[in-house]
Amino acid sequence: MEHRLNQFADYLKENSVDAAFINSTENFFYLTGFHTDPHERLLGLLVFPEDDPIAVLPGMEKGQIRDTGWKYDVLGYADHENPWDMMKELMNQKGLTDIHTVGIEKQVLSYGRSESFFGLFENIEIKDVEGQLNEMRVVKDSEEISIMREAAELADFGVKVGTEALQEGVTEMEVLAAIEYELKKKGVAEMSFSTMVLFGEKSGQPHGNPGDRQLKAGDFVLFDLGVVWKGYTSDITRTFAYRSISDEQQEIYEKVREALEASLAISKPGTRIGDLDQTARDVITEAGYGDKFPHRIGHGLGINVHEFPSMSHLNDGILKEGMTYTIEPGIYDPAVGGVRLEDDVLITENGYETLTKTPKELRIIE
Amino acid sequence: MEHRLNQFADYLKENSVDAAFINSTENFFYLTGFHTDPHERLLGLLVFPEDDPIAVLPGMEKGQIRDTGWKYDVLGYADHENPWDMMKELMNQKGLTDIHTVGIEKQVLSYGRSESFFGLFENIEIKDVEGQLNEMRVVKDSEEISIMREAAELADFGVKVGTEALQEGVTEMEVLAAIEYELKKKGVAEMSFSTMVLFGEKSGQPHGNPGDRQLKAGDFVLFDLGVVWKGYTSDITRTFAYRSISDEQQEIYEKVREALEASLAISKPGTRIGDLDQTARDVITEAGYGDKFPHRIGHGLGINVHEFPSMSHLNDGILKEGMTYTIEPGIYDPAVGGVRLEDDVLITENGYETLTKTPKELRIIE
Repeated sequence: MEHRLNQFADYLKENSVDAAFINSTENFFYLTGFHTDPHERLLGLLVFPEDDPIAVLPGMEKGQIRDTGWKYDVLGYADHENPWDMMKELMNQKGLTDIHTVGIEKQVLSYGRSESFFGLFENIEIKDVEGQLNEMRVVKDSEEISIMREAAELADFGVKVGTEALQEGVTEMEVLAAIEYELKKKGVAEMSFSTMVLFGEKSGQPHGNPGDRQLKAGDFVLFDLGVVWKGYTSDITRTFAYRSISDEQQEIYEKVREALEASLAISKPGTRIGDLDQTARDVITEAGYGDKFPHRIGHGLGINVHEFPSMSHLNDGILKEGMTYTIEPGIYDPAVGGVRLEDDVLITENGYETLTKTPKELRIIE
Repeated sequence: MEHRLNQFADYLKENSVDAAFINSTENFFYLTGFHTDPHERLLGLLVFPEDDPIAVLPGMEKGQIRDTGWKYDVLGYADHENPWDMMKELMNQKGLTDIHTVGIEKQVLSYGRSESFFGLFENIEIKDVEGQLNEMRVVKDSEEISIMREAAELADFGVKVGTEALQEGVTEMEVLAAIEYELKKKGVAEMSFSTMVLFGEKSGQPHGNPGDRQLKAGDFVLFDLGVVWKGYTSDITRTFAYRSISDEQQEIYEKVREALEASLAISKPGTRIGDLDQTARDVITEAGYGDKFPHRIGHGLGINVHEFPSMSHLNDGILKEGMTYTIEPGIYDPAVGGVRLEDDVLITENGYETLTKTPKELRIIE
């Protein structure tokens, strides 16, 4: 954390930002090592170019941030206190009064909180520091990668549990319950998003909701799930056929797999990010399903399950070693059902590695 | 929804707001009946005083909002499109150009999105419309109450499953897994927050995290959990003793129960909200545990698990029939463990009803 705090403070210095207020739980965790969700209560980290940072959080969490090794100031407030006034007072006490430019996470900080924060100063200029934190977070270090490997392994395990729970007449929710039960027993406190288990025509909705649809022969079964593990996420999608598969279903499946493989094949340092989407999209479009692939190819993956960068065909960014992201092409046809396949990808020195390992060959489950 | 949209449009008219942009998933659901979480993608509802509203969402969710019966404009955008430009264009097409005052949810809309939204207009004045939506949402109608009854019943069931899973040596996470498994089998897709199962000294942390702590005789067992059910939440806390209880533990338990009962006793239309906290706090303070009750007495409950109003002793608001909120006093002692008891409360015509029904008498589980 020390290294990250220093790097961020250096950035503030180079960009003449006198104080930055970090409000997202994710960037707070990235910079402090302490993960907490205070719901609507205020959580924040004040970072200065030359002075020690100040963590701002509900008083009852003070002990917990100390337990993680945080050695700087902690401003703990009670529910009836005004943390903004307390911040101002502490900054005054520490002589942090020469503040003309402030940094915020523009896409995170609410308009209301920005008013409260800006109100602590006079005649300030506002800078967005979110981009810098995104850039820092986009390349994972070895410790992060090792946690993400574990998170991906748990996602693979979730898919395995799901396939084992399939039987004629079982509902989507029953299979979902079995998956999360086994994951929780392995210590997973939180899924990275609402687990998706979709049967038959419901797999034809890119964002369907699991319910009491019962499994029957000839259904596609789509799993989309991930875990939060030691503060990092995973996100896998696999689609299986149950007992039988039609020619049209098979055609869709193979095209999605081909699209995923085509994207993976160009995953290496130096590749333009937008080409990951374009390459997969070309495969699907040439097969005549272009209008049935309505979403981007993927997204950055790390502390957030959806994080920077957003991988649409318009992204001119370049892949770098240590980046982690998803590749998840899909074809959705309300009549036939849908197929999506998704891997978590790590860019290595010369190419890539998929952190998710569940095979992608078409599997018909008996 | 029609009624709510009309009521909100009337408010805009009375307050000379020409266009409001609603960005929270909760208020979007409240006004449209469609519940979706688009993660970092933009979701919004444009509401006008005299014209039909416009829903803005990822294109792939267009079919789903139509399925819920939404009959007004839907602006569905693809990942590579700019929804703000599309909003501007559609408003121009519809002749909605005479816009001088805009409304936003100040505590929700990010500073970055506010820049994008305000950038669609010239020389605008900004108003916060969140308070109006909070006021509308604070009193539940009969349909909402009936759903919240079901949500609370599921929370009671979760506590029951938890108590049945207790045995010497079981871990917090194993009990948590059992609770969520049984709830998911009943169709609960999402818990309303991360389920808390805390044993022994860990119950002494107001916001502890379940882990591999094993249960042993003499432990307090604290459950804090809730579900999201048809878009509404529940939130219950119960604390049990496992096999035996010390005099000091028993003293703490009884004081917390007394505090909860004291707060409930004054729960009726007309009561000052802050008195709910003060009454419970007085009981705990008089017993000498004032410094071990570090949080407010409760919070509004509905679409959000923590919603308006925040029930600290400073709240001068008045209880009204149809309000739903939590009462959750606690005493936390790292040495002895902690006790929290929490009910979901509905204000009725002449008093209150607890939606959560699990008994609060001290129970020693064998």
